[in-house]
Amino acid sequence: MSNSFGKLFRFSIFGQSHAPAIGVIIEGLPSGFEIDVEKLSAFLARRAPGGRYATSRKEPDAPEFIAGLVDGKTCGAPVTAIIKNTNTRSSDYEYMRHIPRPGHADFAAMVKYGPSRDYSGGGQFSGRLTAPLCIAGGIAMQLLEKRGVSVGSRILSIGGERDEEKMFELIDKARADGDSVGGVIECTVSGLYPGVGEPMFDGLENRIAQAVFGVPAVKGIEFGAGFESAGMLGSECNDPFYLDDEGKVRTRGNNHGGILGGISSGMPIVFRVAIKPTPSIAKEQPSVNMERKENCTLQVRGRHDPCIVPRALPCIEAAAAAAIYDLILESER
Amino acid sequence: MSNSFGKLFRFSIFGQSHAPAIGVIIEGLPSGFEIDVEKLSAFLARRAPGGRYATSRKEPDAPEFIAGLVDGKTCGAPVTAIIKNTNTRSSDYEYMRHIPRPGHADFAAMVKYGPSRDYSGGGQFSGRLTAPLCIAGGIAMQLLEKRGVSVGSRILSIGGERDEEKMFELIDKARADGDSVGGVIECTVSGLYPGVGEPMFDGLENRIAQAVFGVPAVKGIEFGAGFESAGMLGSECNDPFYLDDEGKVRTRGNNHGGILGGISSGMPIVFRVAIKPTPSIAKEQPSVNMERKENCTLQVRGRHDPCIVPRALPCIEAAAAAAIYDLILESER
Amino acid sequence: MSNSFGKLFRFSIFGQSHAPAIGVIIEGLPSGFEIDVEKLSAFLARRAPGGRYATSRKEPDAPEFIAGLVDGKTCGAPVTAIIKNTNTRSSDYEYMRHIPRPGHADFAAMVKYGPSRDYSGGGQFSGRLTAPLCIAGGIAMQLLEKRGVSVGSRILSIGGERDEEKMFELIDKARADGDSVGGVIECTVSGLYPGVGEPMFDGLENRIAQAVFGVPAVKGIEFGAGFESAGMLGSECNDPFYLDDEGKVRTRGNNHGGILGGISSGMPIVFRVAIKPTPSIAKEQPSVNMERKENCTLQVRGRHDPCIVPRALPCIEAAAAAAIYDLILESER
Amino acid sequence: MSNSFGKLFRFSIFGQSHAPAIGVIIEGLPSGFEIDVEKLSAFLARRAPGGRYATSRKEPDAPEFIAGLVDGKTCGAPVTAIIKNTNTRSSDYEYMRHIPRPGHADFAAMVKYGPSRDYSGGGQFSGRLTAPLCIAGGIAMQLLEKRGVSVGSRILSIGGERDEEKMFELIDKARADGDSVGGVIECTVSGLYPGVGEPMFDGLENRIAQAVFGVPAVKGIEFGAGFESAGMLGSECNDPFYLDDEGKVRTRGNNHGGILGGISSGMPIVFRVAIKPTPSIAKEQPSVNMERKENCTLQVRGRHDPCIVPRALPCIEAAAAAAIYDLILESER
Repeated sequence: MSNSFGKLFRFSIFGQSHAPAIGVIIEGLPSGFEIDVEKLSAFLARRAPGGRYATSRKEPDAPEFIAGLVDGKTCGAPVTAIIKNTNTRSSDYEYMRHIPRPGHADFAAMVKYGPSRDYSGGGQFSGRLTAPLCIAGGIAMQLLEKRGVSVGSRILSIGGERDEEKMFELIDKARADGDSVGGVIECTVSGLYPGVGEPMFDGLENRIAQAVFGVPAVKGIEFGAGFESAGMLGSECNDPFYLDDEGKVRTRGNNHGGILGGISSGMPIVFRVAIKPTPSIAKEQPSVNMERKENCTLQVRGRHDPCIVPRALPCIEAAAAAAIYDLILESER
Repeated sequence: MSNSFGKLFRFSIFGQSHAPAIGVIIEGLPSGFEIDVEKLSAFLARRAPGGRYATSRKEPDAPEFIAGLVDGKTCGAPVTAIIKNTNTRSSDYEYMRHIPRPGHADFAAMVKYGPSRDYSGGGQFSGRLTAPLCIAGGIAMQLLEKRGVSVGSRILSIGGERDEEKMFELIDKARADGDSVGGVIECTVSGLYPGVGEPMFDGLENRIAQAVFGVPAVKGIEFGAGFESAGMLGSECNDPFYLDDEGKVRTRGNNHGGILGGISSGMPIVFRVAIKPTPSIAKEQPSVNMERKENCTLQVRGRHDPCIVPRALPCIEAAAAAAIYDLILESER
Repeated sequence: MSNSFGKLFRFSIFGQSHAPAIGVIIEGLPSGFEIDVEKLSAFLARRAPGGRYATSRKEPDAPEFIAGLVDGKTCGAPVTAIIKNTNTRSSDYEYMRHIPRPGHADFAAMVKYGPSRDYSGGGQFSGRLTAPLCIAGGIAMQLLEKRGVSVGSRILSIGGERDEEKMFELIDKARADGDSVGGVIECTVSGLYPGVGEPMFDGLENRIAQAVFGVPAVKGIEFGAGFESAGMLGSECNDPFYLDDEGKVRTRGNNHGGILGGISSGMPIVFRVAIKPTPSIAKEQPSVNMERKENCTLQVRGRHDPCIVPRALPCIEAAAAAAIYDLILESER
Repeated sequence: MSNSFGKLFRFSIFGQSHAPAIGVIIEGLPSGFEIDVEKLSAFLARRAPGGRYATSRKEPDAPEFIAGLVDGKTCGAPVTAIIKNTNTRSSDYEYMRHIPRPGHADFAAMVKYGPSRDYSGGGQFSGRLTAPLCIAGGIAMQLLEKRGVSVGSRILSIGGERDEEKMFELIDKARADGDSVGGVIECTVSGLYPGVGEPMFDGLENRIAQAVFGVPAVKGIEFGAGFESAGMLGSECNDPFYLDDEGKVRTRGNNHGGILGGISSGMPIVFRVAIKPTPSIAKEQPSVNMERKENCTLQVRGRHDPCIVPRALPCIEAAAAAAIYDLILESER
């Protein structure tokens, strides 16, 4: 059940990089909700390739809604959207059928799924599968907005650099070198009232983490002060409570990242995500030919993003939005 | 369903700090498995209080198996263990009934559960609830061992210090100051064969993270190089494949932390967890009296661990073991 | 995950006939709900042995709440209740360790769980396990009552007889003969508003059926006109709609049993359940000695109910109440 | 999560009668499995309209696999199939937008989903949605066959008649009268080894029943002797065990329908399902205009099957196959 996420707002993603289509089925949407298609398209465009950071491959990801909508509004049935793949099968990947790319899911997929695995373009492990995630999450964001909850994110660093100009330089250099570079994303969720999230295993942290690790290349997540809090004293880390002018309980500081005991405190939810450099690089790398059972080298062909961090922004937002909207539904009962 | 975790190896934790009992029901154990009670007790003893780091409150957490075992062996029915609480109700906590401890789940619990919440000793958010987690996880560890998989952990740093002597100093100082201090735990899982874990939302990272955030005070998790990988180039971060002497595929380096695409690579699984300083400190802290709706200060009474990191070690191992054993069952089909 | 039921109102049953205890953990109860213990005890007493129909074994099933309640009210944590078994282990069952009782779960348990299965008193397949079901369901009934929904049931027939006097005769004769007799129970749920139940696999029929087959000896379920509707014309079976005096939509007749498309129509939910005669009878029966691998006969010792139908009434109500309350929570979002 | 079924073999159905497409996403298939498309088509053809019993509307339901297959074999990713609807939107149903058909889900859908519900052709409650169920179940049947398990069904009675000639007469008469007629289906599963099924709520009976009630018009299910067993003595109902010539344990008689304690006994699984007459009939029926809030009559236009029982056969098989295959996976761990 790995391709499904959520309990009351639940979606299942399907497809592979070069399958006829990729898509998503979404259960748990309210009936009569009008999806703002334009806003959704703008959201999806943020993860589309192109621009300074990205490869120039054309990949228009317009979702086609094949079920669940009547006159643009949800009707109570599951909403299903597909994105057709124009390039459905290719021999471009034949050379690496038996040679796993270092850092990529290739090797694990070979072991787990055997010779029948779909190796074209990374198959089901392709970053393309974040498009349906963004459809589900983008719709969740629209539903969150109706409740006054907004989800945003920004790049905190690229290759360790926090200065934007230096970030650009690193990306440009990585592209020139046939290399790639990682980065850190910070995501903030504002407007969430206190009391959302279930204790223990279904808290905000648990579920956001579970969703966010569904985005390829994520290798870490921290909430509030996160790893920094491990170096703090309790008297530093604890965020004192106070009553604000409107009589609302708030905290001074937000080391807790808006989450206490897995449950929202009413302060903004803040978390950071570590994105490793995309493993597909042009540089020659040592690998193993699994068929011949011998060591070899591999040079990945084709154009690849030197830095996927900018395109990962909406994916992280989508994952967080889906997790949070699901927990809101659970707490609204 | 917040107190339950797992799909095929599934457990549900119950209890509050001062309820008559805390405990766990475990489904999915094989029939005829003899739980090594001595080993389990030794494992549970690691999270028990006492010793240099911990408070001196007495808290013997011997589990009593009330169902699922016949002559010490599993019989196919769910295994249920309880730990009786000797101090089931107390007025010790009355003074903070309406005053949430900064950094603690108190405030969130007040909002979510209202005046009926169990505020004694943190109620269901108490660290005591990690005892039943350790029972479930400790049994999972025994089942993993039969498959050649071992789970271990160590303290990487306390209060930012990696030198053991300095760690001790920081803890002693925190105790003397009525303060507390956090730390980082590194957990390693050895012997796991490649191919375990489901893609997308039920990968090893997703599920380990979901489980580990169930341990109170965890604020971050990273796998392999984690946040450091965000500062790397692909050519640095990618772990090259090679054939070892036995013809097994291995990687040079383990930046991927034994997980590629959510699936085990056969290399050791390595992850680090940030533990914030325990929020219950003796130092006076600003808070809010929720009943009177006025700002106030709070001084938490009683003895509290200046550093829960050592006691958190088996909890992190238990959470990881439960998540991994569950995924092994799923991949063994 | 066989011992768990429900999604938002979720309970997990544990125990075996002669384990130290049987019990249930219940998640999803609202906080601040005062369980009417007296009413619950009266409900549990209906499934307790004794009276004209039942065996005279003493079996007082008073639940002990070990977690989740503070001063008799739910606190938001899972509610856990146990019933201690006074007779925890016995040699009474040794003679049938290797000889499965015809019609009983014994044989299936032998195959599934092997020699370690708990064979005493039927182990986890014992009718005793309906006591924790009745605790969970009895609490669900109290929550349903607060919403104006009531659940009731009656014996429709015993051994094919609908006349009460003849029912008694059949039971008395079965007891005298060392035999047993089955019956049909009709359950009615009144006061449920229209719109509860999810289409396709989580409809009222799907979920009530799933829960009700959890009661041992149930071999069939039908809703509304049920199997009779299979012999009808559409023009007979369809219940016409009309507006009642209060302007509410109602149907003439209730062949649909209050459920259309899996969803409540506002009419009473009516279903019938077939209870087979209890398989444990004193009469000698052919069976197989599994150890010796030879045909043999078996005479089950001890006292056994000649008719479990009366005691099954609260169990069926409990199963239905749990399923319906869970679906109410899902539709109330 | 109503449109999803299963735990390890899990599928989610989407679509409405006149949506652009209907379809299904299937998770949990083994990698490298070649779907026999011809056999699947033949299976789907059994539920397609046409023939003596059925309406003459043309409705070719050829599934198009848009994901999860590479060269006709599963690749480990979820298999997704769609069936495009040629007639995607129509004004044919406008006249009954506000007038629920007696016996149909219309009224429940109006209440549950409000004015945005999809009322064309029954929307998500249409019998058309059994086509994706048959795709998932048809694939499960192929996987069962590889394990030696076969699923078959037959019509036991139509309108109460068990004589085939009289069945035909009843259907012809119902068609001539603008009426419809129900029937009983018997389904048999052969070749299932003992030990499959989980006790209590995930037994074969529980899960088959949950799946089967997902087929529209099902109003009852009974296993083995079913309701007849309620009229039996234990000594009649219990199926005695014996060793057959090969030393296998078998039972004389199969009143238990191949299921003991929710678990397979190795005997054929036998269950019967009551199918009510299809509610869409040409005869004038009393109903309510929900908009005008007044009583009225309704005459359903268009051609409708006078008897859906023959077309329901593969649907019942599909539901059973999906439930059983899922439980086989769970027991094979």
